[in-house]
Amino acid sequence: MTRDSAGEPGADDGDSVVYDLAPDCTADDVEQGRPYLAVINGIVDYGVFVDLSDSVSGLVHESVLEGTYAVGDELVVELESVRENGDLAFEPVDVDDYTLEEVGHDYSLTGTGRLERTIGEQIHLEGTVTQVKQTGGPTIFHVADEQGVVPCAAFEEAGVRAYPAVEVGDIVRVTGTPEHREGSVQIEVDGLTTLEGEDADEARERLEDALEARAEPNDVDPLIDWPAFEKLRPDLEEVARLLRRMVLEGRPIRVRHHADGDGMCAAVPVQIALQRFIADVHEDENAPRHLIKRLPAKAPFYEMEDATRDLNFALEDREKHGQQLPFLLMLDNGSTAEDVPAYETLAHYDIPIAVVDHHHPDPEAVEDLLDAHVNPYLHDEDYRITTGMLCVELARMIYPDITGELRHIPAVAGLSDRSKADAMDDYLELAAEEGYDENRLQDVSEALDYAAFWLRYNSGDQLIQDLLEVDSDDEQRHHELVEFFAERGREEVDEQLDAAMPHLEHETLENGAHLYRIDVENYAHRFTYPAPGKTTGEIHDRKIEETGDPVITVGYGPDFAVLRSDGVRLDIPNMVSELEAEIAGGGVSGGGHLVVGSIKFVTGKREEVIEALVEKMAEADIDEALSSAAPIDD
Amino acid sequence: MTRDSAGEPGADDGDSVVYDLAPDCTADDVEQGRPYLAVINGIVDYGVFVDLSDSVSGLVHESVLEGTYAVGDELVVELESVRENGDLAFEPVDVDDYTLEEVGHDYSLTGTGRLERTIGEQIHLEGTVTQVKQTGGPTIFHVADEQGVVPCAAFEEAGVRAYPAVEVGDIVRVTGTPEHREGSVQIEVDGLTTLEGEDADEARERLEDALEARAEPNDVDPLIDWPAFEKLRPDLEEVARLLRRMVLEGRPIRVRHHADGDGMCAAVPVQIALQRFIADVHEDENAPRHLIKRLPAKAPFYEMEDATRDLNFALEDREKHGQQLPFLLMLDNGSTAEDVPAYETLAHYDIPIAVVDHHHPDPEAVEDLLDAHVNPYLHDEDYRITTGMLCVELARMIYPDITGELRHIPAVAGLSDRSKADAMDDYLELAAEEGYDENRLQDVSEALDYAAFWLRYNSGDQLIQDLLEVDSDDEQRHHELVEFFAERGREEVDEQLDAAMPHLEHETLENGAHLYRIDVENYAHRFTYPAPGKTTGEIHDRKIEETGDPVITVGYGPDFAVLRSDGVRLDIPNMVSELEAEIAGGGVSGGGHLVVGSIKFVTGKREEVIEALVEKMAEADIDEALSSAAPIDD
Amino acid sequence: MTRDSAGEPGADDGDSVVYDLAPDCTADDVEQGRPYLAVINGIVDYGVFVDLSDSVSGLVHESVLEGTYAVGDELVVELESVRENGDLAFEPVDVDDYTLEEVGHDYSLTGTGRLERTIGEQIHLEGTVTQVKQTGGPTIFHVADEQGVVPCAAFEEAGVRAYPAVEVGDIVRVTGTPEHREGSVQIEVDGLTTLEGEDADEARERLEDALEARAEPNDVDPLIDWPAFEKLRPDLEEVARLLRRMVLEGRPIRVRHHADGDGMCAAVPVQIALQRFIADVHEDENAPRHLIKRLPAKAPFYEMEDATRDLNFALEDREKHGQQLPFLLMLDNGSTAEDVPAYETLAHYDIPIAVVDHHHPDPEAVEDLLDAHVNPYLHDEDYRITTGMLCVELARMIYPDITGELRHIPAVAGLSDRSKADAMDDYLELAAEEGYDENRLQDVSEALDYAAFWLRYNSGDQLIQDLLEVDSDDEQRHHELVEFFAERGREEVDEQLDAAMPHLEHETLENGAHLYRIDVENYAHRFTYPAPGKTTGEIHDRKIEETGDPVITVGYGPDFAVLRSDGVRLDIPNMVSELEAEIAGGGVSGGGHLVVGSIKFVTGKREEVIEALVEKMAEADIDEALSSAAPIDD
Repeated sequence: MTRDSAGEPGADDGDSVVYDLAPDCTADDVEQGRPYLAVINGIVDYGVFVDLSDSVSGLVHESVLEGTYAVGDELVVELESVRENGDLAFEPVDVDDYTLEEVGHDYSLTGTGRLERTIGEQIHLEGTVTQVKQTGGPTIFHVADEQGVVPCAAFEEAGVRAYPAVEVGDIVRVTGTPEHREGSVQIEVDGLTTLEGEDADEARERLEDALEARAEPNDVDPLIDWPAFEKLRPDLEEVARLLRRMVLEGRPIRVRHHADGDGMCAAVPVQIALQRFIADVHEDENAPRHLIKRLPAKAPFYEMEDATRDLNFALEDREKHGQQLPFLLMLDNGSTAEDVPAYETLAHYDIPIAVVDHHHPDPEAVEDLLDAHVNPYLHDEDYRITTGMLCVELARMIYPDITGELRHIPAVAGLSDRSKADAMDDYLELAAEEGYDENRLQDVSEALDYAAFWLRYNSGDQLIQDLLEVDSDDEQRHHELVEFFAERGREEVDEQLDAAMPHLEHETLENGAHLYRIDVENYAHRFTYPAPGKTTGEIHDRKIEETGDPVITVGYGPDFAVLRSDGVRLDIPNMVSELEAEIAGGGVSGGGHLVVGSIKFVTGKREEVIEALVEKMAEADIDEALSSAAPIDD
Repeated sequence: MTRDSAGEPGADDGDSVVYDLAPDCTADDVEQGRPYLAVINGIVDYGVFVDLSDSVSGLVHESVLEGTYAVGDELVVELESVRENGDLAFEPVDVDDYTLEEVGHDYSLTGTGRLERTIGEQIHLEGTVTQVKQTGGPTIFHVADEQGVVPCAAFEEAGVRAYPAVEVGDIVRVTGTPEHREGSVQIEVDGLTTLEGEDADEARERLEDALEARAEPNDVDPLIDWPAFEKLRPDLEEVARLLRRMVLEGRPIRVRHHADGDGMCAAVPVQIALQRFIADVHEDENAPRHLIKRLPAKAPFYEMEDATRDLNFALEDREKHGQQLPFLLMLDNGSTAEDVPAYETLAHYDIPIAVVDHHHPDPEAVEDLLDAHVNPYLHDEDYRITTGMLCVELARMIYPDITGELRHIPAVAGLSDRSKADAMDDYLELAAEEGYDENRLQDVSEALDYAAFWLRYNSGDQLIQDLLEVDSDDEQRHHELVEFFAERGREEVDEQLDAAMPHLEHETLENGAHLYRIDVENYAHRFTYPAPGKTTGEIHDRKIEETGDPVITVGYGPDFAVLRSDGVRLDIPNMVSELEAEIAGGGVSGGGHLVVGSIKFVTGKREEVIEALVEKMAEADIDEALSSAAPIDD
Repeated sequence: MTRDSAGEPGADDGDSVVYDLAPDCTADDVEQGRPYLAVINGIVDYGVFVDLSDSVSGLVHESVLEGTYAVGDELVVELESVRENGDLAFEPVDVDDYTLEEVGHDYSLTGTGRLERTIGEQIHLEGTVTQVKQTGGPTIFHVADEQGVVPCAAFEEAGVRAYPAVEVGDIVRVTGTPEHREGSVQIEVDGLTTLEGEDADEARERLEDALEARAEPNDVDPLIDWPAFEKLRPDLEEVARLLRRMVLEGRPIRVRHHADGDGMCAAVPVQIALQRFIADVHEDENAPRHLIKRLPAKAPFYEMEDATRDLNFALEDREKHGQQLPFLLMLDNGSTAEDVPAYETLAHYDIPIAVVDHHHPDPEAVEDLLDAHVNPYLHDEDYRITTGMLCVELARMIYPDITGELRHIPAVAGLSDRSKADAMDDYLELAAEEGYDENRLQDVSEALDYAAFWLRYNSGDQLIQDLLEVDSDDEQRHHELVEFFAERGREEVDEQLDAAMPHLEHETLENGAHLYRIDVENYAHRFTYPAPGKTTGEIHDRKIEETGDPVITVGYGPDFAVLRSDGVRLDIPNMVSELEAEIAGGGVSGGGHLVVGSIKFVTGKREEVIEALVEKMAEADIDEALSSAAPIDD
């Protein structure tokens, strides 16, 4: 083919297409076997040099050329070969008649999923900015696309904010080169543009669709077949979806959980599932450490002090590291009106909150403040579906590969909270398959209680994982540690009861129930294990065993009382409301479950409050099916 | 001019001066239009090369030369031009008779203020060493000159102390090259000499003069016209001068303030003013974060525990970062004898202290230990000039540009401490101009109280700034947060009073005053908001409203009592002294203002102490003008 | 010599040896003056090139060659010279008859002690891996050989674990280049091999022998001549040996000590001796900071809470920094059954423990859990040999150069614990030689008490060192600070006693002893200095002075009592056991020394317990030689 024929559009012999590269096209836009329009820009002994675009040039060797050429002549060529040094060789294509079709530069995107394969090559990426961290050197933009989140380093001047207009939440197109940097892939930014208008809308929609698809929880079959659980499953999936989404959006997650056995059986699996999912999604190897934090809480609700502390940390992390404010996940805690002040405080900073709990909820009080709320009471189920049971499934929805490590956990959770769920047998069997007989499970539960007490506000990650045998690497240690902690715990319970039992006051109520009272301030050791709640519970259990139902046990201190009952139809929340109204200046508050709970009052009204309480209890109906087996918070 | 004529000193025609550059002179020492003695060191076709000093050479073009020359001949020349590449061209000057005047190298200093314009060029700098930090790489000397403080990195060997003889406080001359380094300007040191003797004295004097001039507080007009304040203004300027000086000297500042509304209205403006001034003065971008720390204190005085902790941190920072020991600024706290042990502890480490307070002072006890002390009582004024009012002016003296953000703060401070200052109207009006009506100001005050309680020992920077709307970027959040915290606080006060009010004991004293007593240990919730001091105050306020003056309210716990009174001429400090003497083994101590304060005693003597106290109160004169509106520390 | 002659092994004229370098030999294996077998691999105008091994080649110049050669011919050569650029020149050696002797590559080791002299040169090193820290860049293996511990940086890929099979405890051979890195010597690893089988056994044996030899404590003469101490010396040497060994093995050491005067006199010298020894042994300049931590403890035993916290930190350090789990050193604490739960917890993580204490021990309870136990009671001595006295000698065994700074410490320790040891005179004299008269020593002791109280859980390194004048650089500060703290402490003791003394209850027991009782909860200030234990002790001392022996003093709070006695033959541990058995529901526990100790009980049984206790005391024999001078824990 010569310039002449190429130049003649007149011929009618077909729809031959010749491609015309736009000036910004690169060698990547040239495809094998396609005819391109070229212009001769140099003539040498051994051939002619042609330009296909501003940056695409190559040689057409004289051996494949016919006729003569002048600089500026057009020529239709095909790619012949790419030499090792990147030079291109073309050969003429004989087309008599053709239509020109412009080819734009393919700004096709390299997803974060393919970065390892493009190390050192310039790529393009579109995504949402999830974090903007100014370092002493470059500005680091964390960008989330359909596949993951990658740090992109843009250097303006040391310590000077690059692209100062770009903010978290913007949709950007990044051109840059993936490099290994401190164990992670990072993109060295050549250019970064915020998408606007339609482009942004399209990208946002595409990213949102992808995010939504990827946030979708894994469809795992529950570990056991349990109709009661099925009712909560959609709610739990919603939480899994939210958490996965937070990870994909690069938002930190803060887990606050009840510091007892069930609470830890709930929080640890979710923590580890999230850590593993974060590691998959984020190129930054420190992401699992930076993006999730687990914090035990002693109080049975989210205290203002904890909330202000959480908020402070969050605001500091935003200030120092450009992090988004966190997502708060409350586990085995958080369903009641007492949580409202803390929630409202966080709401002012747009911190979303999800709750998975099995304590008696005040749905009308919290619902507006929560992004998701899982609680068996919302589905006519009760505390017997423990938070640990729920969260093992939640962890699996987040990261199903974790399943193998979690089969024994629901049984531990159930025993910790004395769940009488009909599913307990199945859970015990499942645990037995993993080598956990009931004694050992009971030991794990008591070891957790004991460790939680001494750890106080510390998450004690490795220690708790060793006790739970989740993400733990030394089976022998697990065994010995569980045995030792469980035994120590039991010994200390025995010591506490040795002191307390002789001071137990007994009376038989009008309704025939045994009432036991113990002054835990004066007749139990203070500030040591077990705390008043557990001390009361242990006394209660012994008395049931000794006397059979019905039994009520009250452990009281200067300004609080812990209540447990079996076989009596109490309605503690209602009793608390009545006492609050009846006893002026009593400062009565509290609640809990129907038949188990705690009451607070002002010290000076203790006797009056407790006497009134006992009167109410004496009027309650006997119902041997009722049990206070649920957890009592210390 | 030729070598001959230049060589002839005989001619009598004037005082022509020719300059002779010393060997160490550089091109910078050559001034346009001045004749210099040069020596020919090379002859080429197109001219001769001349040397003016070891490093200053240049060409004299043959077109401007007359006669012949030999290498070694002298020539008087002037600078003709400096080429782009830095080469110098000279031309001969015709001087028949002249006196030679030696020119020493002008080690003229590039002030830290001009560093940005000299990046990459060698400069000289003289200043005081303010910090010597050994890193794993170079040794970093922070050097303060007349304009600012700049880090100078000297490298001896990795991790090895460069110039080991140079210490904090030395006057040094640094030769080096300013470079951008992690967002800051840093000088890479080529040479560093400690000035000795006269040189040091001169430099010290010059630096001291400059420091003194620069430390001078800004002369700002007070926000309102207030004669009472004018009496304190010179004292306040002295504190501003000291603080500015500390910044210029690179000394860290530690602010300890009362953790209540007025205390925060005092501390936050000063903190932010200092941060901004530090950012201006220091090239190191981390300086604002490293050089000032704000710490709330719950106790009404500087506790030994806090002082030892502060000292520990200071000694560690000196050990690890080569920082100077800090300057301590006590705000809304620190004027009394109870502060003395803590002050003396710090005095042993030469830590200077300034106090701005409006609590009743013990000047004779603290004066010797303080570098400055601002307190209205030292000028026959009283608590009505609150610390927050004073510190807004202090912040403006430090950094006047902050003014616009602070106009509403004095009103908040005044309401927080129930100031009945005649200036309150003006302050309220000022706040109103900024859109703050009295209700909103009251809300801010109560929100601060509430937040301070839950933050405990945490400064909660962002949260408090959002509540105060200072250095805060989200007006809507400020509004909502203030409203929410204020309301929550009021609700919790109501709950507390619901419990407490029915237990209030009333009697009418002989002098006709109402006395109310409340056992806050037994009839108020413990460890929650509001604490005993505020609980007592709220009861007192309600009783004044209900009964009118005169009213005394006593809130007591096991070993303390909080006192508030209106309309009774009490002298609490005096009553405490009497009780201390009268009640053997009572362990009585305490104090406060005349008509408001707190008393401590040993638990076992509580009844006796309170009875004796009440007797004294019954004897006090009635004076309806007196109010206990001042702050009560919890 | 020619190939021919070299090739003829037939001649019988001697045992000439020619060396044949193994293929992996390097130029370092070539020795001057030795004949080597070479093979010609190239022929040029000016000579022939010969190979001696894979990497050893060189020129034989034609001027020294005779005859003709072909590539592949063998030639016996000697090293002639090494050129500046490292090129080798050889010359032929004339050997007619020879035996070939293979030379293996000399993997001779450069000990860590010689690294400074081999900076930039490739060396070989064999040792035990003591820590494997993955950084964002290289993997850092800390390797301990006979002389020290050096960090070896191996780079696989940024953040990727190099040599993943290599673990702490492995014996490895490292080839690499020592470089200065952040102030320390670090080896850049070229190759790292785990030794296996016999090689490993040999190396392990060699390293173990060296370690054992180097761990050997320094043979120092005790500061004074004291037969009683001699009995404990071997035990103390064992602890010194263990601690030195831990340092040589790169294992972190955590010191928990009683937060009183004697405890600090024990812990600070050992801490500083270890820091200095660590600095000598470890090339990493941060090692002294990372490998030893001193932590004061308020409780008279190792609490579970502290143990779980210590364990958490240890597990985190292992996780984050690849550190070994620490060695725990308990000082002036740790000898009793109450320590067992904490010890057992640590035992599950293989954390070794040594104790130096002078409190009455329960050897049978703790022995199995300890790697070493020094206690005077184990050798029929008693508390009079204080822990501080022992640990000054321990510090000297670890690092004898510290001796000069410690001569006054045993006297301080003795006075702090009121030791009536016969050696006290010698110690006082020793201190006097250093300028410490008894008043000043007493002041130091009281200043320590006072500082310890306010420091709480903080080690306050610099402050305590200034008080003790150990590793302290400002003598004047030491003097002033000691005086001030001592005086403040005495003033606060006086204030406390002013409150308490009027409430002291006195009775004369049947056996004639004075009994004083004080309710420290109701008649002393709480949460301030002095705490109940010291308050009781001070009262006791005043009463002895006032009345003479025998005196018993009981200070009691809601659930505890502190006991001190002089001149009465009490057996407190036995009395506690009896009370525990006799008083059902009393929850009695406690103990201490024979004549001094503390008891815990449940609040509601306080009166009964104390009455029973007093009865027992009334029956005790009088023995004026007995003193409760030993320390009482608060």
